[in-house]
Amino acid sequence: MPQSQLHINLERLQADIEYLAKIGATEQGGITRLALSNNDLAARAWFANRCQEVGLWTHDDEVGNQSGTLKSTNPNAKSLLIGSHLDTVPNGGRFDGALGILAGLECLRTIKESEISLPNHLEVIDFTDEEGTWFSFFGSMGLTGMLKPDHLNDTQTDNAGFRAALFRAGIRLKEVERAKRDTNNLLGYIELHIEQGDRLDEAKADVGIVTHIVGRATYNLTFFGEASHSGTTRMNTRRDALQGASAFILVAHQTISEDFPEGVVNCGNVQVIPGAFNVVPSQASLRMEFRHPDKVELDKMKTSLLQLLDQCVQDYGLTVRVEPILHRPAELLSGVINQAVAEACQTVKANCMEVVSYAGHDAQILNQVIPASMIFVPSVNGLSHNPNEYTSWEHIEKGANVLLHTILNLAQKDTL
Amino acid sequence: MPQSQLHINLERLQADIEYLAKIGATEQGGITRLALSNNDLAARAWFANRCQEVGLWTHDDEVGNQSGTLKSTNPNAKSLLIGSHLDTVPNGGRFDGALGILAGLECLRTIKESEISLPNHLEVIDFTDEEGTWFSFFGSMGLTGMLKPDHLNDTQTDNAGFRAALFRAGIRLKEVERAKRDTNNLLGYIELHIEQGDRLDEAKADVGIVTHIVGRATYNLTFFGEASHSGTTRMNTRRDALQGASAFILVAHQTISEDFPEGVVNCGNVQVIPGAFNVVPSQASLRMEFRHPDKVELDKMKTSLLQLLDQCVQDYGLTVRVEPILHRPAELLSGVINQAVAEACQTVKANCMEVVSYAGHDAQILNQVIPASMIFVPSVNGLSHNPNEYTSWEHIEKGANVLLHTILNLAQKDTL
Repeated sequence: MPQSQLHINLERLQADIEYLAKIGATEQGGITRLALSNNDLAARAWFANRCQEVGLWTHDDEVGNQSGTLKSTNPNAKSLLIGSHLDTVPNGGRFDGALGILAGLECLRTIKESEISLPNHLEVIDFTDEEGTWFSFFGSMGLTGMLKPDHLNDTQTDNAGFRAALFRAGIRLKEVERAKRDTNNLLGYIELHIEQGDRLDEAKADVGIVTHIVGRATYNLTFFGEASHSGTTRMNTRRDALQGASAFILVAHQTISEDFPEGVVNCGNVQVIPGAFNVVPSQASLRMEFRHPDKVELDKMKTSLLQLLDQCVQDYGLTVRVEPILHRPAELLSGVINQAVAEACQTVKANCMEVVSYAGHDAQILNQVIPASMIFVPSVNGLSHNPNEYTSWEHIEKGANVLLHTILNLAQKDTL
Repeated sequence: MPQSQLHINLERLQADIEYLAKIGATEQGGITRLALSNNDLAARAWFANRCQEVGLWTHDDEVGNQSGTLKSTNPNAKSLLIGSHLDTVPNGGRFDGALGILAGLECLRTIKESEISLPNHLEVIDFTDEEGTWFSFFGSMGLTGMLKPDHLNDTQTDNAGFRAALFRAGIRLKEVERAKRDTNNLLGYIELHIEQGDRLDEAKADVGIVTHIVGRATYNLTFFGEASHSGTTRMNTRRDALQGASAFILVAHQTISEDFPEGVVNCGNVQVIPGAFNVVPSQASLRMEFRHPDKVELDKMKTSLLQLLDQCVQDYGLTVRVEPILHRPAELLSGVINQAVAEACQTVKANCMEVVSYAGHDAQILNQVIPASMIFVPSVNGLSHNPNEYTSWEHIEKGANVLLHTILNLAQKDTL
């Protein structure tokens, strides 16, 4: 069979996806496999066994990233990383992360069976805590040498739970720095992932070529009012922290929708103190998150949101504490890899389009030290982080075949 | 000394209030003495000892109400109940409840010392769980025979924690019905309490004569949307449960403020599911509470709020579950008792005015079976359920003296 007709085995890939979906399955049909939890550790053990069955070199590093490598005999071989993550959000879907790992494994299995000899190593890699249960991109930041002692020490905030979880998973804080890889030995990084939005689904495209990953900022906001009796305190003398928080949540969404068509904002929770139904709230805390594919617009969003915040605080006679948590501008992905993805789409006759990733991915971390990019497949109705997350098997097959031919193309090169 | 010049000993009352405030004192200067907690049990034991020191007959009933009685020698004597509660909300103030109990105790001490002989018993009584940590008005509902087996059994909701707390406090479920008192033996009920609002404080009045207790309704509202990825889901396709809840919280407050000048509404908490900062909320739950001194207006508020709810649910593409928890119309208090309070105000030269209680009190329960009313003293800035709750010692002295002369007046009568 000519190499251009090589294709993955969907039946085998589907069986793997369905098996993995049992680890951490929830009553609602979703998956809870939080990073470093029992379920995550079970999934990692299962994945290591799968890699060994295929005959890959199975190994892990000092931040818990797990790899299965198809070794090249070339003495100057570099490693092409093919990654994603096995961890999930609470009650998430079965494809987010899992697809990239299992499609990568299937590609290596297919290449190994075809006995094609390549001048570079192919390494499928599961990154620790992509979802940020403890620390977003912990694994990819460790591999790229971006983890600083400040990220892990126990002074500013109480990281005790995280440290205990790491210890239990066999990750030793003193050894974390040794996870840093020499980029001279790395060729590049490619990741297949579900889109998690509805742009491909709406455009009826099979595959998305990801040009860049959205920029993102998060802030902790705490509104302070005054607790008082909910029956006896007149409406016009209350300083109700939850009123201010509610007003901000509404106006933030409305303003971003109207003024920043490519931007998104979310408030995923509110914590209220004292929290009794018959006491006017004295405190309301939330974490606000916003994203934009353009660096300048992300800054404008920040300015706009903080102005709205001031107005809400004033309107309800409150005060506020603003804590910036993260500000990461958009990341432009590798044009060389994307050219290879586009050629692979032609080879497997996948109908493709360029897209922006509105989700954060390990690719944005790796892209800072080696050429990196991503391949998206459509999410039906754009659903993700939800038990009803779904991608058709037809699209999974197309996406995995695009990944296969992208790997075959890139792995021929000395450098990207 | 003529009886009209009899007065309480402020120094002694103040010492009692300050001692009791140490039981359950919080770092913020408030009090946490939740019903049936260790702190509540300690306060009850201390109160029983104080009653015994005074030489009162000290006893408790089958729902945990604790009394100290100054017995009359009249064979046909009835009991005049003088009550309030020793329990508090979380981090509440030192006067809410405590004042009524300790001023009552001080009045009995004063009357006993003056060796006045009265034709009725005087019974100062601490009612169990007025604040509703477990079950609002548990004690007064027990005494009036309003507790039904349904209130305590373990079928509809899990009352295990409540049942354990009762058991530890020596309250046996099988005996609860025996707490019901024969109303033929009860003369009436009078309670001194802080206003917990700012109407007296603003009007510079010393004392409020409470004409009625506000009506109150509570509902559990659960908004249902759809969880999705906060980065990849477009703003205009989200079904964000927290958006709907926030919109309702705002519009409910605004509408009640504008359309029901005598009504109040509160949302004291919101619980969000799944609650991650990077997931669009699929569920938001809150308990809405609203009050009005007029029965018809309370019903109108209900209609208006449920219409607003429907609109919010529709606007954000959500569904909602509405669970009515309580609907208790306003209670008109005893005119006979209030006449005695007005006369007492003249006797002690207290500047008084008629007020409505916007808080619920045990008096509204007792009023359903015997004549009952309340005396209010001003709350500085209307603060209550807050560590900064405060009433001046001058007003406390005035209020306690009004209570004393009201007791002396009522206790002369055969019936009210």
